[in-house]
Amino acid sequence: MVFARNQWYVAAYGGEVGDELLARTICGEPLVLYRTTAGEAVALADRCVHRRFPLSESNRDGDRIVCGYHGFTYAPDGVCVAVPGQSRVPRTARVPAYQVVEQDSLVWVWIGDGEGDPAAIPRAAWFDSAEYTTVRGMEPLAARYELLVDNLLDLSHETYLHAGYIGTPEVAQTPINTEVDEEAGIVYVSRRMKDVECPSFYSESTGVKGRIDRWQDIEYHPPCLYLLHSRIAPTGVEPSPDGDDSSAFHVEVGYAITPETETTTHDFWLVARDFALDDAKVSAFLAESNRTVVLQDVEALNVLEKVIASEPEGYQELSINIDTGGLAARRILARQTAPR
Amino acid sequence: MVFARNQWYVAAYGGEVGDELLARTICGEPLVLYRTTAGEAVALADRCVHRRFPLSESNRDGDRIVCGYHGFTYAPDGVCVAVPGQSRVPRTARVPAYQVVEQDSLVWVWIGDGEGDPAAIPRAAWFDSAEYTTVRGMEPLAARYELLVDNLLDLSHETYLHAGYIGTPEVAQTPINTEVDEEAGIVYVSRRMKDVECPSFYSESTGVKGRIDRWQDIEYHPPCLYLLHSRIAPTGVEPSPDGDDSSAFHVEVGYAITPETETTTHDFWLVARDFALDDAKVSAFLAESNRTVVLQDVEALNVLEKVIASEPEGYQELSINIDTGGLAARRILARQTAPR
Amino acid sequence: MVFARNQWYVAAYGGEVGDELLARTICGEPLVLYRTTAGEAVALADRCVHRRFPLSESNRDGDRIVCGYHGFTYAPDGVCVAVPGQSRVPRTARVPAYQVVEQDSLVWVWIGDGEGDPAAIPRAAWFDSAEYTTVRGMEPLAARYELLVDNLLDLSHETYLHAGYIGTPEVAQTPINTEVDEEAGIVYVSRRMKDVECPSFYSESTGVKGRIDRWQDIEYHPPCLYLLHSRIAPTGVEPSPDGDDSSAFHVEVGYAITPETETTTHDFWLVARDFALDDAKVSAFLAESNRTVVLQDVEALNVLEKVIASEPEGYQELSINIDTGGLAARRILARQTAPR
Repeated sequence: MVFARNQWYVAAYGGEVGDELLARTICGEPLVLYRTTAGEAVALADRCVHRRFPLSESNRDGDRIVCGYHGFTYAPDGVCVAVPGQSRVPRTARVPAYQVVEQDSLVWVWIGDGEGDPAAIPRAAWFDSAEYTTVRGMEPLAARYELLVDNLLDLSHETYLHAGYIGTPEVAQTPINTEVDEEAGIVYVSRRMKDVECPSFYSESTGVKGRIDRWQDIEYHPPCLYLLHSRIAPTGVEPSPDGDDSSAFHVEVGYAITPETETTTHDFWLVARDFALDDAKVSAFLAESNRTVVLQDVEALNVLEKVIASEPEGYQELSINIDTGGLAARRILARQTAPR
Repeated sequence: MVFARNQWYVAAYGGEVGDELLARTICGEPLVLYRTTAGEAVALADRCVHRRFPLSESNRDGDRIVCGYHGFTYAPDGVCVAVPGQSRVPRTARVPAYQVVEQDSLVWVWIGDGEGDPAAIPRAAWFDSAEYTTVRGMEPLAARYELLVDNLLDLSHETYLHAGYIGTPEVAQTPINTEVDEEAGIVYVSRRMKDVECPSFYSESTGVKGRIDRWQDIEYHPPCLYLLHSRIAPTGVEPSPDGDDSSAFHVEVGYAITPETETTTHDFWLVARDFALDDAKVSAFLAESNRTVVLQDVEALNVLEKVIASEPEGYQELSINIDTGGLAARRILARQTAPR
Repeated sequence: MVFARNQWYVAAYGGEVGDELLARTICGEPLVLYRTTAGEAVALADRCVHRRFPLSESNRDGDRIVCGYHGFTYAPDGVCVAVPGQSRVPRTARVPAYQVVEQDSLVWVWIGDGEGDPAAIPRAAWFDSAEYTTVRGMEPLAARYELLVDNLLDLSHETYLHAGYIGTPEVAQTPINTEVDEEAGIVYVSRRMKDVECPSFYSESTGVKGRIDRWQDIEYHPPCLYLLHSRIAPTGVEPSPDGDDSSAFHVEVGYAITPETETTTHDFWLVARDFALDDAKVSAFLAESNRTVVLQDVEALNVLEKVIASEPEGYQELSINIDTGGLAARRILARQTAPR
């Protein structure tokens, strides 16, 4: 596999990047992340130019990193400014400094050729908005990122893998509608369920007791950002003609799917809501429940990765209607991954 | 290595196959085993046709298996009878169902080409007979099955590896007689010891206190079934001319040697006796002692597998007379493994 | 990588070789070491000729080893003197016996072609001298031996990796002098520090409280023996014109760098001193402190080995003046490793 390198990836949450040196590998590239005293997030290659010692296992001296092995010292732009035993620093002594954009509480990094276009980064404003309350986490996944893309594009698995949490029989039974914006490279999958059971994930958090209408509108921006616009309302409650939908409950679920290696993935997940904004119990419930659901996926995908590792070459899958979103995503990812 | 695929293998004991879904890999093929409500043992390929999720990590719905990921549903013949989100089931949706024969308390499976001939399965009636009492177990072996074949065909190792259990000096000292039935593909190795020490394994279980005559008659049906007809009698006690041998003690030891992967093996072991049939203490003693002996072999063979993994290609062994049985077994296995 | 096989290597400390069978792999060759009743150290190949069982997991019978699997019996010269089930021992039944030289408390072994020249073994008489007291240990290193050579040839890392133990700022700041005896194949690196801080390693052991002159004179005999002649004296104290230097403290640090596999190494370390010879507290302090320092190196080098395993082929390092010793060592090692 070749990674889609000329793409923006979420390397971390903004809150993870601070005084400490944070090691994170993205598409096989080892990075060290930290925040300067002025508040800028910095991402450097995590290898000293001298004897490849990880800078993330080194120490900061102000905004500089001093290698923990022999003391090679790097400025935030990656330039080496001091070496041991001599005053002259070789001109070629520098580590790559990666372009960073901090937006919507996410730290996006460009590891590709040339300079990345910040305007190409998809937005997810809910996750950094005062009108929403967000819970979040990140789970390490011992599986290739494509398996997580498959998983998230086909939510019929909620019925089986997440029964009792977010899955009800109607999810698997209800057909989906898939659209692909080939030019923008976005996959849309939507499922509109009417007069259905309300899973505990939503009944506990919203307080809705009876039957509901439940919308799942997926918007996947390959390779990294997956958004699920989830709308819950008592059955029959519709948005008003002027677009007002304040009688419904909205949950914006996000995933940043960042390949670590060919067979491991950073599984960032976020859940933003437009109700019970200051209710700590609802926050704790959603954080705990969503983490449980993510870990159910992680466990299943880790199994699949082992299956793939042990199976003969050329194994054939069988796809049906529920897979149209996932197959569309694969086509776009194949295009992004292809050598230019 | 290529496995001898067109052969019958023991996949499980009959008692292991029940309501629960049992995962077991045989010659690299992942299987799921279970028993229908009518009592039939079923063996299916352990991979959903959709996204390869293991059926063994799924759920039963009556005699069907419902995939734990997206709900693809399989009948005992492997045919998929339901999929999510649509009523039409693709015609090609089926998993391989493997031929199963349950005999002598063993579940034999055919993973080879076409249909296997049940008459070709070697018998081991003691293990399911009212005239014998059997104890049994299965140990996972982190070594290639050929090492277990070598081990069992040359019992001179009892003297060194199993001293204090079934090994006495006379086992290694006594020459063997080897015969090969090339047409039937069976290896016979026998060792007749006269007036020798009785190891604790037999003195404790039979109550014989003095010197004994001890016969070890091996009958190996490659690749899977190994039988050791063991006869213990006070020195000088012989079968009567009419064939009656009721003054001796008979222990029928069996091993089913089933490759899991190229370097791991299912080591099934059984010990049947024609004495003290209802004596629970003797059963417990033999079960515990034989398991100890098997684990001594497992430990030694696991070491040998690591040795092989670290040694250069083309390492040469040196063989002597005690190895004639093992070398004959290798020849038959090579023939069975060769492409047809 | 190819090992430099035609070289002497330290396989063990003399004190490690006794009645017990000691397994140790050197340059990929598995050895079993023991001491005969007459006191000779013996090194044999650790594989029975029959079915490759490790002799180190077997038993001694006097000066012989009896294989734990089938009883093949070996004399100290590697010749097989007994096999099971027959009186004739095949003429080719023997395991390689390696040439052993025990010197300066070290057990040197020759695994190369033909016979090694004992005179080619570098001396380290301090470690077995009544005029010195020595503490020692051996740490397993999960890194290729070249990383340990790099580490030890460039002591500027003491400032960063061993701060608080043997590192002070002056080590990294002070330039080195490198000399190479190409004919003898020895690398010399020396660093003379005047009027510098005394690290705790030396202040605690010598009792010197103030500023010191500190000499580090490295003498590396590739591939295996590394010696560091360390001299500590109160600032201004010089050897007298007649060579007497009894007012200074001398510490002779040794490392035997023995490759185990391509990516693991036996890291033998010794610290001999010519002061406080009978002071058990000083011995305990130096043993504990040096072990801590070695483990700091081990941890860092284990990280580097993982970095190398995950990096693309052809990664380029950047070298500066401090690396002249290490680069010279690499040149000699490349020569020793080259096929002849």
